[in-house]
Amino acid sequence: MINDFIYLDHAASTPVDPAVLDAMMPFFSEKYGNPSGLHAQGRATKQAIVAARRTIAEIFHCHPTEIIFTSGGSEADNMAIRGAAWAQKLAGKGSHIITSPIEHPAVSKTVDQLCAVHGFEQTVVPVDEFGRVNPADVRAAIRPDTVLITIMAANNEVGTLQPIAEIGEIARERGIPFHSDSVQAVGTLDLDVRTLPVDMLALSAHKFYGPKGVGVLYLRKGTPFVPHSTGGGHEEGRRPGTENVPYIVGLAKALSLAVENRVESVARMAQLRDMLIDGVLNGISGAHLTGHPTERLPHNASFVFENCDAGALLMHLDMHNIGAASGSACATGNPEPSKVLTAMGTPRELALGALRLTLGKHTTSAQIERVLAVLPSVVESVRSVYTIQK
Amino acid sequence: MINDFIYLDHAASTPVDPAVLDAMMPFFSEKYGNPSGLHAQGRATKQAIVAARRTIAEIFHCHPTEIIFTSGGSEADNMAIRGAAWAQKLAGKGSHIITSPIEHPAVSKTVDQLCAVHGFEQTVVPVDEFGRVNPADVRAAIRPDTVLITIMAANNEVGTLQPIAEIGEIARERGIPFHSDSVQAVGTLDLDVRTLPVDMLALSAHKFYGPKGVGVLYLRKGTPFVPHSTGGGHEEGRRPGTENVPYIVGLAKALSLAVENRVESVARMAQLRDMLIDGVLNGISGAHLTGHPTERLPHNASFVFENCDAGALLMHLDMHNIGAASGSACATGNPEPSKVLTAMGTPRELALGALRLTLGKHTTSAQIERVLAVLPSVVESVRSVYTIQK
Repeated sequence: MINDFIYLDHAASTPVDPAVLDAMMPFFSEKYGNPSGLHAQGRATKQAIVAARRTIAEIFHCHPTEIIFTSGGSEADNMAIRGAAWAQKLAGKGSHIITSPIEHPAVSKTVDQLCAVHGFEQTVVPVDEFGRVNPADVRAAIRPDTVLITIMAANNEVGTLQPIAEIGEIARERGIPFHSDSVQAVGTLDLDVRTLPVDMLALSAHKFYGPKGVGVLYLRKGTPFVPHSTGGGHEEGRRPGTENVPYIVGLAKALSLAVENRVESVARMAQLRDMLIDGVLNGISGAHLTGHPTERLPHNASFVFENCDAGALLMHLDMHNIGAASGSACATGNPEPSKVLTAMGTPRELALGALRLTLGKHTTSAQIERVLAVLPSVVESVRSVYTIQK
Repeated sequence: MINDFIYLDHAASTPVDPAVLDAMMPFFSEKYGNPSGLHAQGRATKQAIVAARRTIAEIFHCHPTEIIFTSGGSEADNMAIRGAAWAQKLAGKGSHIITSPIEHPAVSKTVDQLCAVHGFEQTVVPVDEFGRVNPADVRAAIRPDTVLITIMAANNEVGTLQPIAEIGEIARERGIPFHSDSVQAVGTLDLDVRTLPVDMLALSAHKFYGPKGVGVLYLRKGTPFVPHSTGGGHEEGRRPGTENVPYIVGLAKALSLAVENRVESVARMAQLRDMLIDGVLNGISGAHLTGHPTERLPHNASFVFENCDAGALLMHLDMHNIGAASGSACATGNPEPSKVLTAMGTPRELALGALRLTLGKHTTSAQIERVLAVLPSVVESVRSVYTIQK
């Protein structure tokens, strides 16, 4: 059944590419030494890590020591925010953080905890109806004690791209470290830290056909940083723990493949995405696109449907072998509207009918056609129940 | 060459067991959904995690919600220590931590950072010549503001087992959370949290033939805990990030295999270890066993050699296709004696000649014989250079 499945939840996770798995395989049972080991087995894995780090550094155009391997995007976000915030606070620079209302919980909950537990303060700058931050608002929010700005590169729910180059310029002008959660952006956007004024970038391999459980924090040289976790001297004392050699090798391979095929793959996905968006907006009454109409991720098509329950919609789509996601945490019986949509000014009753369809490199036009054939009646039947319940 | 290699560094890492790799394989490219996904792909991986958690909980005789998946032992140690210490401090209980001088850096550096940066205090209780903590010293170190005791289950360098049951009884009597880094112990020791008075246990899959980059924190229900990292609601809000499904499945499988074969495997390794220890002590002059003569891990044979440089020893052994480790961080040009050996009272010049040989389930008596045939001449040739340099 899983083979007939139309998987449109690539923003949540992607399958490991066979070439990535091939690259990883020797490092499970053959080359298994701890990279710290002073013997042939240790050298074999250490060399693999050095090569992976160099590959990644070349892609971002940074120095290999600016690449820190983590267990994923959430850890990278936590490390970046906590690392910079604490370093600044301990240096007496202040404790004020600027962020946005549409951040991933790995960012927002981390800033919240720093404020609730550790005496930091935050300013949450608004977003417009498309979910976009205005750089002028960031500039206006800066205080003498601002120690960190954290704004994502692209939103995970509605796909809106943020003006991180402009925000980064403002941050740099004022000497404030700038972190950007780039988990959704890496693989489709071209991020070159020579020109992009970002000091910290978090990314996660499983968003671009690598394995789940490995990520990277790009940490620009000179950025204030206190290690979030401590232990052995791995990653130059910035992130402890025996290196996950197969996944590090896999991340480098997956990133290389993504970059290699980026232009073609992005064009292909954007075309299918537009076909999907047009089909939904034209074929279903009371359907609205969420996020920015043009400044959005090439694989993200997200909507709200009037008078529609997102949870029921997902269940019905699943019964039709279509895997999708909602903007809201609708897994529980008592759904809350998405924080992102709420920040964009979407009314509650609309936000409860959110649907996110995210395409991947294996998505076909036949699959999109099938979704467009099925979705109108699915929305209709969910609506009929929804209306009765009300 | 790697096939002829006599690998005696199992305390550093182990190869992934083929049965473990088999269990992991479907979760890379076939069942790849994010476990939070509300569709067939998400359910497939969610079910796998639920099953893995239950398997592990049954082995430790705890409730599945007491099992938190992490990216390894270092993260589990950080989460336990920081999580409990902060929760206690924020509750106004105090900020005094009791630990030992022979902890893994994931513990000692974490306590050090809490003290240096966050205003905690520590008492480091001594160890005896065998590297063992005296529970009476722990009892004497307790203050009214003691909020955490952290003492490892078995030492990674010299293999000495700690009296964690007795220490746990004292902690429980006084209502103080007790964490034990069990990274080296899990797989060979039987840890049953129904009877063992430990509140937090850290373990890492790659020490028992699972993959590198996944671990568990056992967190007893009711233990004070503030999340170390924040984000999505994974692991009941205690550890964020998309679950590393293949490795979680692999960890459960590896632990099951370890438990299944434990008695036989431990007996076999202990016999070979004793053969190795006897051979070294009888065959090489100026050789001394480090760690406890009987209360030690069944696969650990660790020594110091008089007038011998550990780094040179490892290099020579590697040239003979033998992979071993030293107690000291001898990778650099300026070796420091092991902190563990120093705490045990081993003189500096002896500690600089440390060798750790750790056996595994594939270690054969022929391999031990080969090591015993090679080691005396290796030590001799290293000594000749060492003496000239002095």
